[in-house]
Amino acid sequence: MNGGKRRIKLILEYDGSRYAGWQVQPNALTVQEVVESAVARILRHDVNVVSAGRTDAGVHARGMCAHFDTDSVMTAEKMKHGINAVLPEDVAVITLEDTDGSFHARYSASSREYSYSIVFGRRPLRRAFSWEVYQPVDIGRISEAARSLEGTKDFFSFSKEREGMRHYYCHVFDSMVEKVEGGIIYRVRANRFLYGMVRALVGTLVDVGRKKRPPEDVELLLARRDRSLCSALAPSCGLVFESVRYDESEYAFVQSRFRDAGIGNDKDE
Amino acid sequence: MNGGKRRIKLILEYDGSRYAGWQVQPNALTVQEVVESAVARILRHDVNVVSAGRTDAGVHARGMCAHFDTDSVMTAEKMKHGINAVLPEDVAVITLEDTDGSFHARYSASSREYSYSIVFGRRPLRRAFSWEVYQPVDIGRISEAARSLEGTKDFFSFSKEREGMRHYYCHVFDSMVEKVEGGIIYRVRANRFLYGMVRALVGTLVDVGRKKRPPEDVELLLARRDRSLCSALAPSCGLVFESVRYDESEYAFVQSRFRDAGIGNDKDE
Repeated sequence: MNGGKRRIKLILEYDGSRYAGWQVQPNALTVQEVVESAVARILRHDVNVVSAGRTDAGVHARGMCAHFDTDSVMTAEKMKHGINAVLPEDVAVITLEDTDGSFHARYSASSREYSYSIVFGRRPLRRAFSWEVYQPVDIGRISEAARSLEGTKDFFSFSKEREGMRHYYCHVFDSMVEKVEGGIIYRVRANRFLYGMVRALVGTLVDVGRKKRPPEDVELLLARRDRSLCSALAPSCGLVFESVRYDESEYAFVQSRFRDAGIGNDKDE
Repeated sequence: MNGGKRRIKLILEYDGSRYAGWQVQPNALTVQEVVESAVARILRHDVNVVSAGRTDAGVHARGMCAHFDTDSVMTAEKMKHGINAVLPEDVAVITLEDTDGSFHARYSASSREYSYSIVFGRRPLRRAFSWEVYQPVDIGRISEAARSLEGTKDFFSFSKEREGMRHYYCHVFDSMVEKVEGGIIYRVRANRFLYGMVRALVGTLVDVGRKKRPPEDVELLLARRDRSLCSALAPSCGLVFESVRYDESEYAFVQSRFRDAGIGNDKDE
């Protein structure tokens, strides 16, 4: 809860190219820092902006959800325009509205969706937001391997070390490949994502597509719980945090799945 | 004709952001110059690369067609890979093939298509290739005005000065607005385009959408033949040269239209 203040919910879009990720850190420019500074300039008080996901360095967002609390009486519309006017051109508030004090951008989220764009060969108009893959890939093999990631699974092998993790289980609702002109988009939606997880998955899926690995390797890797076996991480520029869902029944569904499997509840993104 | 040499046809994609347009000019970096240098490095002889259109500074291309002549015996595939390996990352050869010596990228073209992307408000992931328009626009008004540009018309009012123009008539096959999430794409296909024409059209169309002008202004402007009446040019970053058609019957159709109207034949893009 927020002590009787207004709670403001934001949807943010950002080009992560020049940022060291979402989360504030010393000696590096972060998205959280520029958003907090912009809000502070407009509202004239410090704020803590909490997001649904802490994207990694160079990763983009189209529909990042975040919240902050304020005592300001400024209208939501004026707040949105003011914040956008002082944000750098690579970060923008798409929507801003008052929300219930019990809403929490991170803890209330029931699922997050990421997309990862791959183009085959050189594509100058898409290179800023795609991985250019030069070797031929078999899309059917990637699709098959991608589908095998759906369900409640331990993603230890596809994560980087981070403190405070009690377990590495995620429930993946959808993991699929969409064909687009000259490339593919990998879309994955899960209750939560581990640090570096989507880039590790994509690196491995592309190796499956290049026939460096069989599609069954994905399930084998999950079972082995050994990070050294997965492929190199795919470049961050292709990854976009697309959207968040706040769906109570979806949230309850994952909790019951985890409870049945004897898995605790990490408050992660 | 090309004196018995091989004639090579290319499709190029480029991000025009850092270029002073297509055409070689002193003291400025151009797309033609980097393509000619790359071809020369691979084939070890100078070439003149002729394109279907001479895009303006900052304008992009997804399907620019071009040709050059060579005595080289290198396979088309090896040539393509070699040229791509030495081109900067913002210019790429998408396809490369041998073609008939009578093919001319510029003179054989029957129509060119451009797209212009507009987003409403700030959109960081699209800003590099779009015009961010902040005021509300009425899409129906833009559509109506866009449609009124179709047909054989004198586009003097929507062009910048360029030497050697005998007339300013263009035959516009399609001029239409496509709605996309959070914005619109204006698509226009014509036998040829005048210098600055699409950006002048888009600037005026957006003013129609903002209700600064009535939709009928477009036809009025065409009739007046006065450049000072059109709106400011739309920014170049939103403009993409999409594709070229080489269709003999389409070509003949425009020639007969021009002949019937007593219009001469400019060899323009």
